[in-house]
Amino acid sequence: MSTWTDNLTMETMAKERANPPFDVRKMSIEHHGSESDLVKKEKFMLEASRDPVFYSADIYDLTKDQIRERTMQRIQRLAHYVTSESVDDFQKRMELMSLLDPGLWTRLGVHYGLFLGAIRSGATPNQFSYWMEKGVIACQGMFGCFGMTELAHGSNVAGLETTAHFDAQTDEFVIHTPNLGATKWWIGGAAQTATHCSVFAQLIVKGKRYGTKTFIVPLRDPKSFQLLPGINIGDIGKKMGRDGIDNGYIQFTNVRIPRAYMLMKHTQVTRDGEVREPPLQQLTYGALLQGRTAMVADAANTAKKALTISVRYAAARRQFKSDAKAQYETQILDYPIHQRRLMPLVAQAVAFGYTALELQRLFEETSQALEALEPGDPNLEATIEKLKETHSTSAGLKAFCTWATLETIDRSRQACGGHGYSSYNGFANMHADFAVHCTWEGDNTILALQAGRFLISAYQDALDGKEQVSAGTKYLNNIEQVLAAKCESDEALDTLDGIDRGWATVAAHAVKKASEDYQACLKA
Amino acid sequence: MSTWTDNLTMETMAKERANPPFDVRKMSIEHHGSESDLVKKEKFMLEASRDPVFYSADIYDLTKDQIRERTMQRIQRLAHYVTSESVDDFQKRMELMSLLDPGLWTRLGVHYGLFLGAIRSGATPNQFSYWMEKGVIACQGMFGCFGMTELAHGSNVAGLETTAHFDAQTDEFVIHTPNLGATKWWIGGAAQTATHCSVFAQLIVKGKRYGTKTFIVPLRDPKSFQLLPGINIGDIGKKMGRDGIDNGYIQFTNVRIPRAYMLMKHTQVTRDGEVREPPLQQLTYGALLQGRTAMVADAANTAKKALTISVRYAAARRQFKSDAKAQYETQILDYPIHQRRLMPLVAQAVAFGYTALELQRLFEETSQALEALEPGDPNLEATIEKLKETHSTSAGLKAFCTWATLETIDRSRQACGGHGYSSYNGFANMHADFAVHCTWEGDNTILALQAGRFLISAYQDALDGKEQVSAGTKYLNNIEQVLAAKCESDEALDTLDGIDRGWATVAAHAVKKASEDYQACLKA
Ligand SMILES: Cc1cc2nc3c(=O)[nH]c(=O)nc-3n(C[C@H](O)[C@H](O)[C@H](O)COP(=O)(O)OP(=O)(O)OC[C@H]3O[C@@H](n4cnc5c(N)ncnc54)[C@H](O)[C@@H]3O)c2cc1C
Ligand SMILES: Cc1cc2nc3c(=O)[nH]c(=O)nc-3n(C[C@H](O)[C@H](O)[C@H](O)COP(=O)(O)OP(=O)(O)OC[C@H]3O[C@@H](n4cnc5c(N)ncnc54)[C@H](O)[C@@H]3O)c2cc1C
Repeated sequence: MSTWTDNLTMETMAKERANPPFDVRKMSIEHHGSESDLVKKEKFMLEASRDPVFYSADIYDLTKDQIRERTMQRIQRLAHYVTSESVDDFQKRMELMSLLDPGLWTRLGVHYGLFLGAIRSGATPNQFSYWMEKGVIACQGMFGCFGMTELAHGSNVAGLETTAHFDAQTDEFVIHTPNLGATKWWIGGAAQTATHCSVFAQLIVKGKRYGTKTFIVPLRDPKSFQLLPGINIGDIGKKMGRDGIDNGYIQFTNVRIPRAYMLMKHTQVTRDGEVREPPLQQLTYGALLQGRTAMVADAANTAKKALTISVRYAAARRQFKSDAKAQYETQILDYPIHQRRLMPLVAQAVAFGYTALELQRLFEETSQALEALEPGDPNLEATIEKLKETHSTSAGLKAFCTWATLETIDRSRQACGGHGYSSYNGFANMHADFAVHCTWEGDNTILALQAGRFLISAYQDALDGKEQVSAGTKYLNNIEQVLAAKCESDEALDTLDGIDRGWATVAAHAVKKASEDYQACLKA
Repeated sequence: MSTWTDNLTMETMAKERANPPFDVRKMSIEHHGSESDLVKKEKFMLEASRDPVFYSADIYDLTKDQIRERTMQRIQRLAHYVTSESVDDFQKRMELMSLLDPGLWTRLGVHYGLFLGAIRSGATPNQFSYWMEKGVIACQGMFGCFGMTELAHGSNVAGLETTAHFDAQTDEFVIHTPNLGATKWWIGGAAQTATHCSVFAQLIVKGKRYGTKTFIVPLRDPKSFQLLPGINIGDIGKKMGRDGIDNGYIQFTNVRIPRAYMLMKHTQVTRDGEVREPPLQQLTYGALLQGRTAMVADAANTAKKALTISVRYAAARRQFKSDAKAQYETQILDYPIHQRRLMPLVAQAVAFGYTALELQRLFEETSQALEALEPGDPNLEATIEKLKETHSTSAGLKAFCTWATLETIDRSRQACGGHGYSSYNGFANMHADFAVHCTWEGDNTILALQAGRFLISAYQDALDGKEQVSAGTKYLNNIEQVLAAKCESDEALDTLDGIDRGWATVAAHAVKKASEDYQACLKA
């Protein structure tokens, strides 16, 4: 009666893989943007899979402290690559690292993305060289953390309360935590590994407040790792996931740093305590975009990873006979309901992949435009528009893609029945690690509201006949026609142009409805 | 500028709690069914909160093995209560234990709910006494596990392949695992702690198969805990959650048990190998309902726990000033969008609580009717109808409530921003522990399909003019009128009767649509 054979799973998989109706290699190339990028990623994957430092099969049974130690061993190994390969190559390597070890990715993201990113976007050329020479690239003598969030303030960055008083007598800033709520909280790397922190604090000069600026504050002696005077640090301990990164809290008690440790590309404080503010405040926020852009790519990659497991399992798993005379039970992938559970998610993950490539392109274009700006530049207005668009697009996509991927992970888990619940099959950690993407670098609800605000105001502009310059909202031009458009024929939806026009109408109606609902709320 | 005071949180909470617009105690009594039940639960909570064995604040940093040890210490403590208090009291205590330690709850649920439940529903009175005397109630000398699922078969219980051959010569059954796929898998308690297993195996007598029956198979010597001959057991290891229970796999190699170890209330095998099958197979499945019923209550309780944390936090957390002149930042609970995120979930959790009380009542009624049945009983048909209704209602509710609660937990976490991600705030483990509820004791998709099948066939019956006897589908009687009914006035929805009729129409339309879609699928 039994039809069990020990080889059945392997035979089934081989059969599923045989004779695909399309060229798999060609599709992979498309997914990764180009053949050279795909080949690079394959090379990086091979290197990681053979390197004992990246051995991960035992990770499920390690304690938080063991996982943290492993993170540091891996960082030591990656420091080798960062000094020997191009930034672009290293970024691709990092993108894969997130699939392998999200805690490690975060620890490096905090250092290279947030800490170094803060320096890159906020330092003068001289300051930049100064910190480079301290060893920030090779993580030698300088390993950074990013000190924005406080116990009482996360989303409301303007409300941060850590103070940076300028002491004109000694030409120093005094960094201070005025109350418990102002304790820096969640700071990744602070608990054990960071030597320096980019601290967001209220600049106060001669009693006047100038808002939140960034200061590089040494935390530990880079040799002994002893805390420096005035620095109190604690460990935030066990988290839902990403235990590989040592999140901590920091209190500063009258910590003195040289004036030059304030990043002064935008706002400057002179030796006499004169404060020069930048002409355009909004140009200073470009640096926050990189994290969100990376997270959209990470959402796509993680969704694909989860679905690779669940779709493969669905092909191999058999449960119930649909036909009593069949030799084997039915592969669960052949049940229409199972296809409905997984296939739309596959399509979505693929779409996220292309979205990520496109957002990366937009981000790079915007960054270059920002860096090329000169005083009195004729491109100023266009660049500001571009920045606004990149802001709201990355905000909306970060929220949408991370929410959807978190759901994809759990649906994939459930599609694997009981086996999805074993840690060794990957979903447990994947979910726990990924979940924080909905919260950090802009809480998803807040980001969704920002994207919504941008769309509603674009819609109002469109109604007022103002032309949309942002590529992302161009579909709102000729709004009356777009709203009234009907699909001419089923065939129209077989062309890219037809799909494009279809989406324009769908999106315009969605924005119109949101806009009208919003107006109604305001009136109520 | 700062408005931080160390007492602000406590003051805010005190203010929120002052002057509630309704009698909180009265509401609690309603939620728990009666004042005496509420008082009992408060007593149990107090006992657990003061008992060092139930100290849980350090749980987040323990290893899997430490957590398992703690489970056993707690079981030792609970064994004291189980022998000294009524079944009903102990069940209430257990309901609370799930909020405190879901792994512990599971270990006890496997023993008392599944293992003992299998004996209770499947044993003859003599067999029942026999196992009682072995110490099953006090977990003395007998600690059970439930061996249904195999590596290759979970949902398809009829496809299980473990065999139980009757050996007429020795008057024994031979329990055997014929192939790798037939390895019992996921069995909670098997890895380390169980002495006996209720094994589901194919009964084979004189070469003829009689389907899946239940056999009590000793696994370990109750003193030395050494595995008995022919028993191979392995540990399933790290899971997404509930590491307090030791899930294992079991292979049987020609394990011999006395004939009397087969549970023979329904099917009997005589000394000569004659097999007597029960007149009504469906009456044997009543035992599976208890777990689902308990899980609906657990979903309600867990959702309330998650929401207690997130709503309290929303009252105390302030972020951004809605009005520049306000003394403090706005409590996030005062943002309409935050209310929309949490309040519908609160309403749902409360509704789940009442649903659970009602399902418990239905379950008890059905169990009593089943136990009271005599051969040739005039109540037979009505009881079978009741059983069918209880089956499909508990299946649908288990799926719906566990899915919704899993979502409630993660939404609650996200509503707490970064702090939701700290393990110490409870959501991480709550989510990981709860997630398995969507999979075990009937995979939710399969259960939803079963509930759907029941509803669609009830709808067909209603169309055919056949009267609905089940209370749960009575709204389908007079189907034409119910479908055509319109709400007379807004006031009608302020009365219970009006709401009831409103739901009847909504539900009837939903079932109609499902039914028509299903028919369309069949034709396509
Ligand atoms: C694992 C982890 C690592 C982190 N690492 C770092 C780090 O290295 N450096 C760093 O600086 N920070 C770090 N953070 C902090 C993170 O950036 C913040 O948690 C995040 O910005 C959200 O802020 P919050 O936690 O204060 O939430 P809050 O801003 O308090 O929000 C709480 C809830 O209220 C809602 N809400 C808030 N305001 C409004 C409003 N106006 N209208 C409606 N709803 C509102 C939000 O949607 C959210 O659900 C980390 C966080 C975590 C969890
Ligand atoms: C932590 C844990 C503890 C457990 N403890 C025990 C225990 O103590 N004793 C015990 O006996 N068992 C136990 N189980 C097993 C549990 O009962 C099974 O995992 C569950 O019944 C699902 O079976 P499965 O895992 O084989 O999934 P499968 O039945 O293989 O289902 C896999 C997937 O396919 C889908 N699917 C299956 N059939 C169909 C179909 N016909 N149409 C459409 N979709 C379909 C399902 O929806 C599911 O998503 C435990 C499981 C876990 C995770």
